[in-house]
Amino acid sequence: MEELKNYYRRVAKYSSAASLLYWDMQTYMPKDAGPYRAEVLSEIGTYAFKAMIDDALGTLLERAQPQNEIEEKIVSVGKKEYYKYKKVPPELFQGIMMTSTMLEQKWEIAKSKGDFEEVRPLLEKLVELSRKYAEILGYEEEPYNALLDLYEPGMKASDVEQIFSSVKTFILEVLKKIESLPKAEDPFDREISAEKQKEFSIWLLHYLKYDFNKGRLDVSTHPFTNPIGLNDVRITTRYIVNDMRNSIYSTIHEFGHALYALSIPAEFYGLPIGSSASYGFDESQSRFWENIVGRSLAFWKGIYQKFVEIIPEMKEYTVEELWRAVNRVQRSYIRTEADEVTYNLHIIIRFEIERALINGELNVKDIPDKWAELFKDYMGLEVPNNTLGCMQDPHWYGGNFGYFPTYALGNLYAAQIFEKLKEEIDFDGVVSKGEFDVIKDFLREKIHTKGKMYEPAELIKMVTGKPLSYEPFVRYVKEKYSKVYGIEL
Amino acid sequence: MEELKNYYRRVAKYSSAASLLYWDMQTYMPKDAGPYRAEVLSEIGTYAFKAMIDDALGTLLERAQPQNEIEEKIVSVGKKEYYKYKKVPPELFQGIMMTSTMLEQKWEIAKSKGDFEEVRPLLEKLVELSRKYAEILGYEEEPYNALLDLYEPGMKASDVEQIFSSVKTFILEVLKKIESLPKAEDPFDREISAEKQKEFSIWLLHYLKYDFNKGRLDVSTHPFTNPIGLNDVRITTRYIVNDMRNSIYSTIHEFGHALYALSIPAEFYGLPIGSSASYGFDESQSRFWENIVGRSLAFWKGIYQKFVEIIPEMKEYTVEELWRAVNRVQRSYIRTEADEVTYNLHIIIRFEIERALINGELNVKDIPDKWAELFKDYMGLEVPNNTLGCMQDPHWYGGNFGYFPTYALGNLYAAQIFEKLKEEIDFDGVVSKGEFDVIKDFLREKIHTKGKMYEPAELIKMVTGKPLSYEPFVRYVKEKYSKVYGIEL
Repeated sequence: MEELKNYYRRVAKYSSAASLLYWDMQTYMPKDAGPYRAEVLSEIGTYAFKAMIDDALGTLLERAQPQNEIEEKIVSVGKKEYYKYKKVPPELFQGIMMTSTMLEQKWEIAKSKGDFEEVRPLLEKLVELSRKYAEILGYEEEPYNALLDLYEPGMKASDVEQIFSSVKTFILEVLKKIESLPKAEDPFDREISAEKQKEFSIWLLHYLKYDFNKGRLDVSTHPFTNPIGLNDVRITTRYIVNDMRNSIYSTIHEFGHALYALSIPAEFYGLPIGSSASYGFDESQSRFWENIVGRSLAFWKGIYQKFVEIIPEMKEYTVEELWRAVNRVQRSYIRTEADEVTYNLHIIIRFEIERALINGELNVKDIPDKWAELFKDYMGLEVPNNTLGCMQDPHWYGGNFGYFPTYALGNLYAAQIFEKLKEEIDFDGVVSKGEFDVIKDFLREKIHTKGKMYEPAELIKMVTGKPLSYEPFVRYVKEKYSKVYGIEL
Repeated sequence: MEELKNYYRRVAKYSSAASLLYWDMQTYMPKDAGPYRAEVLSEIGTYAFKAMIDDALGTLLERAQPQNEIEEKIVSVGKKEYYKYKKVPPELFQGIMMTSTMLEQKWEIAKSKGDFEEVRPLLEKLVELSRKYAEILGYEEEPYNALLDLYEPGMKASDVEQIFSSVKTFILEVLKKIESLPKAEDPFDREISAEKQKEFSIWLLHYLKYDFNKGRLDVSTHPFTNPIGLNDVRITTRYIVNDMRNSIYSTIHEFGHALYALSIPAEFYGLPIGSSASYGFDESQSRFWENIVGRSLAFWKGIYQKFVEIIPEMKEYTVEELWRAVNRVQRSYIRTEADEVTYNLHIIIRFEIERALINGELNVKDIPDKWAELFKDYMGLEVPNNTLGCMQDPHWYGGNFGYFPTYALGNLYAAQIFEKLKEEIDFDGVVSKGEFDVIKDFLREKIHTKGKMYEPAELIKMVTGKPLSYEPFVRYVKEKYSKVYGIEL
């Protein structure tokens, strides 16, 4: 057992180096360093990958004699991953790493021009490699399931489709009711300097007791959280001068991810159980802090004074007005700026497209048209360009097919966890006083300290007593937005 | 040959990752991440080390059929390093990596308190490991030569001693003459904010045409240059509010290092010839830009206007007054703040101590006393505490014994190169107009593009037609400081 753990811990150091190489690429790396960085990332990533499929690991896994539940999980999760990835030729893995790093850099430049042709050839290659990857990993029902399983173990596209279809119907009903109301003035429709926004973001992180001895806040085009190493989980945000909501909620969102990563027991670090239960569960934590905590009236009561101290021109608005303004529901183009009601529509569109791509039912060249078509159907909007359309997110250009559904699943997990939490604590009372430790303790005990010991379907049942359902999300939205808009939803 | 090159290039990617891990540790890493970072650096560093002594590399080196001089050098330099490091057990290397990373972090904290006891136990361990390392590497005359050779190939401690002894006598004579003069007012004896200093440092780098697409300027306790990867050579500086000279000259110094690293041909990258000729040669470039260019009157003529624009309170001084102020010669405690005349005294003290440590003639616990003794003898100053004494520099705590002499050698190389350059160009004319390309072309052609093809003794002869001598340095100091102080030196 000890030998097995040490093997994993050794390999984790290469993953840690790769994480830093990636973080740096997104934050501080000089422009011309890109091509070589892609090579370095690919080399180190492939080294870690090869070590995870090495016969020596297989032998250690087969010989290990677990003495308790934690060790049993290390071996069982370890075996599942070992035999899964063992089938993948390292050249294929290296090809995906290399292509996606290069494509992501290309996308970064082409994005603002919305020039899909710039990224198309490499994206075609990446989809082809990803389809090969899915074939080799193996799947039930459809190829897409092989990739979805990488992010949400045990989840099937057909389950997702069913949940999404109920959610979609509900969202469109809510949207119709809200859109019939007169539009309020938007307090955030003004320029607020990056410096002020930064000051407030840093204050927010201190208020939430993010441990700056174990992390940092930096800036990147697309905010992200990176667990670089033990006691080193960094987050980024972005400052958009004409909509401060963006930085506030990106910061809180990434804080939620970081809190999860920092609360996984140190003795799990580097082991197969040493990460979050799934991407969906990870997202449930970020969305929980961003939306359920951060967009609550109670939270705004706690931060109002500091907020108007840093942004004095906001004094003319009451706390309720600001709270309504951060919960404005409306059709929009950009996923990361979407409200929590329409957010899932953005995901459903991406899910349908990537599922078709991987299942071989859609060609890369047809993505922009398909995007426009679905966006018109579901969101009721004409997409003016690819910057506001299929080139807004890095995921596909980074080779992360199967990732998007986890965002919506995260929203559903979060709502279900919230219902359970409310049974145990006075949520509004605690949040308005900024006493977040009570909430953190609940999340840590029930979720974070479990690491990746349980599959998401199992864990949500352990935490809430029930299997995943979209109904808590529906109840949450109805209750909250009836108050926000003063109508019966 | 191709296989051999690819082998080196693959291993270089791990060194690149290690460089980034180190750079991050010095700049942006959260505090608590230190212990794990030490483990990661040690693992990746050891991987690269093991690859450099792998039998597979030996076979490739023995079988390689070089077709031209460059390939011949790749093989000969490669073989020299391979057979040298092959003798070192990886456990010893890993022990040095691990201990030095941990000690450097400890030193970073203990430094400001000057608490030598805090660092003593680990430093004792590191000296012991380094002595073992010297024994295994092998040496002529004395163990210290084994380590000196790592930084300055071919150089012997006895040669260094001889050169240093002449230099020391000369410095003490000059110092006496200068100290007999009345002291001028110091324009830099005022507070200048870090923001203003940063603005000027960034302007300076643009003025010197440092390529920000291939590098960055950041802040660290001890300024350094880090070649992280191809087209990625980053520098750091520090902003001391009550002495702006520090940031100006740290920035220019590191620029000199970066220029060298960025000018080595891309096709040498990762190969045995793909670095600077030696640490001394590297330092010759940084000191050349810092002192010979940056502290010249001609340079100040070029930057004066911008300088007083950013620091308007300096308008009351003439360009000559400012030039004299950055060339003030005086006894001082801190090496990195020393003028170019007394600088070498700082090095001579360190050389004598580290030579005695490695040769087993001095115990770690006696370093503070020995430092005080030599400082009194040579510099004529009582050392008030270890912060201003033996704990000011990171080198020993980072395990870099044998490194210090290269700073003084760098000064000597620089002066000798300068004498040659002056024969070919109108140095003052070029520098006052900011036409640095002429100088860069000379350095690139004669030095940078050679990479590590030649040993320093060979290269200085190729560049200047003569072997290394301290005389050009003596002539340079006499001529310059006679003007600075208006006396005959």
